[in-house]
Amino acid sequence: MFSQNVVVNNAELLIRKANGGNMRPIWPDKDSGIVKVIDQRFLPHKFAISDLKSVDDVINAIKRMVVRGAPLIGVTGAYGVYLAVINFDGKTGFDDFLINECNKLKATRPTAVNLSWGVDRVKHKLLKMTNQSARIDMARDEAAKIADEEVENCKKIGENGLRLIDEIWIKKKGEIVNILTHCNAGWLACVEYGTATAPIYAACENNIDIHVWVDETRPLNQGARLTAWELGKHGVKHTVITDNAGGHLMQHGMVDMVIVGTDRTTCTGDVANKIGTYLKALAARDNNIPFYVALPSSTFDWKLNDGVKEISIEERDPDEVRYVQGLEHGSIKSVLISPASSPAANFAFDVTPARLVTAFITERGVCKATKQDIKRMFSEKIIQKKGIPS
Amino acid sequence: MFSQNVVVNNAELLIRKANGGNMRPIWPDKDSGIVKVIDQRFLPHKFAISDLKSVDDVINAIKRMVVRGAPLIGVTGAYGVYLAVINFDGKTGFDDFLINECNKLKATRPTAVNLSWGVDRVKHKLLKMTNQSARIDMARDEAAKIADEEVENCKKIGENGLRLIDEIWIKKKGEIVNILTHCNAGWLACVEYGTATAPIYAACENNIDIHVWVDETRPLNQGARLTAWELGKHGVKHTVITDNAGGHLMQHGMVDMVIVGTDRTTCTGDVANKIGTYLKALAARDNNIPFYVALPSSTFDWKLNDGVKEISIEERDPDEVRYVQGLEHGSIKSVLISPASSPAANFAFDVTPARLVTAFITERGVCKATKQDIKRMFSEKIIQKKGIPS
Repeated sequence: MFSQNVVVNNAELLIRKANGGNMRPIWPDKDSGIVKVIDQRFLPHKFAISDLKSVDDVINAIKRMVVRGAPLIGVTGAYGVYLAVINFDGKTGFDDFLINECNKLKATRPTAVNLSWGVDRVKHKLLKMTNQSARIDMARDEAAKIADEEVENCKKIGENGLRLIDEIWIKKKGEIVNILTHCNAGWLACVEYGTATAPIYAACENNIDIHVWVDETRPLNQGARLTAWELGKHGVKHTVITDNAGGHLMQHGMVDMVIVGTDRTTCTGDVANKIGTYLKALAARDNNIPFYVALPSSTFDWKLNDGVKEISIEERDPDEVRYVQGLEHGSIKSVLISPASSPAANFAFDVTPARLVTAFITERGVCKATKQDIKRMFSEKIIQKKGIPS
Repeated sequence: MFSQNVVVNNAELLIRKANGGNMRPIWPDKDSGIVKVIDQRFLPHKFAISDLKSVDDVINAIKRMVVRGAPLIGVTGAYGVYLAVINFDGKTGFDDFLINECNKLKATRPTAVNLSWGVDRVKHKLLKMTNQSARIDMARDEAAKIADEEVENCKKIGENGLRLIDEIWIKKKGEIVNILTHCNAGWLACVEYGTATAPIYAACENNIDIHVWVDETRPLNQGARLTAWELGKHGVKHTVITDNAGGHLMQHGMVDMVIVGTDRTTCTGDVANKIGTYLKALAARDNNIPFYVALPSSTFDWKLNDGVKEISIEERDPDEVRYVQGLEHGSIKSVLISPASSPAANFAFDVTPARLVTAFITERGVCKATKQDIKRMFSEKIIQKKGIPS
């Protein structure tokens, strides 16, 4: 199990972030060989840092959603390989050990493709290396490189998405732009900026008047807990709503656009994201509201063509549905909602078919949710991965 | 304020219901002139009965959702008129007093049309009556009559809906029929049988193998709390899901039909129901799954033609979104989910346009969600109410 150190001086950290500082949800501590992460389970009520010292710590942290969000899971997986290397005891062959540890990491959660992508990228750099000290440096540097690249990607997603928000703002003649988002695809999920939130933060920096409808995102309330917290710390106007409310808001002209993240997107444009995303996409289509998915290229799965049929949807503990966690009299508690004898089901993601997606906001620009457009924008990746049949 | 008496011997009451007994969520105590209701706020964790002794008690009970559900609100409103009459002190003219008390009752919650309908029906019987004792008898009898009629209506809704379930069961060659429902349109909402649940209970009695997906129905979780409790007590197979899950289930062939209730339905077939219903209707349409609305004729608003534009949608306390109530260590607690500084919005209903409704299940039979079909089935009500322009 990973150890947890509650940060006492969290005010300082929060202020750093709120002031545009560089707080990240994951970072390595070079001297100790420990990877530090923000424990996202207890936000916004408790700000805590956890130490990851081994592959098992990383597996636990991902499974139990200490860290979550597709890009962050990818980076955490990459640092997991680094921790595997640090803990290599030399009793077996390194390559076999490495492959085995990477397979364990990749099996942790099935839906976010970034996990395999991040783990494999570090793994491929390490195979056949013989010097242990050089392996450690290589693993740490490659994981850090992935993190930095994701930050850069998110920054560009922000710039590319900003244009879409700006267009609506101009069309509305400076009236406030209402954006709906589901789950948390913010900096907590993505190292910095976020995917869905990057255009939102960029719009704020450019003094565009925006307001965000934050879906609470049951069962684990990543919207109400994390997105609301992030937006509040950045001074972005927002309102928490139930996951049921979006359709009504759209029917009554209270939503100008939807931006969400994704955990895995096929090369044909089908989008796996937090359960409930599909329902919002249907409502957006029914009300002629643009529905955007913001993602770095690491979230594309170049091998898949049919999201509904092919993307593995994680089923999690039904108790995440039966219980809700929150704050009561200063303590974090879990309360049982339903009868103790009633079973529950907990599908963590759904797939929004490409036909409901207005466009993707990627680090390279905005493209339609079609094989042709995705192929045009990421041609060399597709060749490299041998994914899309021509 | 209404007083609350926790029922100690609730096991007995529950067994009565589970055994097909006649427990109702509302009943008058003839000797005391008190109206008794099941306090639905704390179910399934605490079974309590509240005493309503005055119009103010009724207003509080409806506003605070001690009682809820369109048909039950109608019946409670009717009993509210009875309590108004009991408390008439003779200092003013009776008719003016009565009209004033009825207006107070009708203003309690805006969306469910049954409230006005129930209140006005008793009121019209009382106007111009001069004998106080006869007024009391008339008010109590008319309220009881409304309750009994709603029970009879729900029973017939069950019979009419049963045929639809049976058709699917035959088509599936006896394989289990999966029904999704949103919120609680069960006997707790409707005196007996329920509206949406009436066909479900009828199917069970007829040994059709069914399973119900119960939307938890945030913010107040009437699905997870009340529908799951009801179905469990009746031995109906069910699974609680988040409101986000329905689309995924429908995409994967896990839902055969949707049945919901309604709080107000226009004569053109637009359906106001608990927020989130519209999203499920969209998903049902996208997956070619029949979407049924079960309602007694008391829930039609014969005057309205455009549900989205004309039905008043109640906005309730945002704290119902920010907090969730449940059981922890044997006590009912409310926990705060979102940051204390984040605002929330709480729209209680949405409107599902008629085009998304496969059919209505009413006490008179099944009809399409069109003005023509509704008119054909309820022609004399329309003439009586002067609602539908010919």
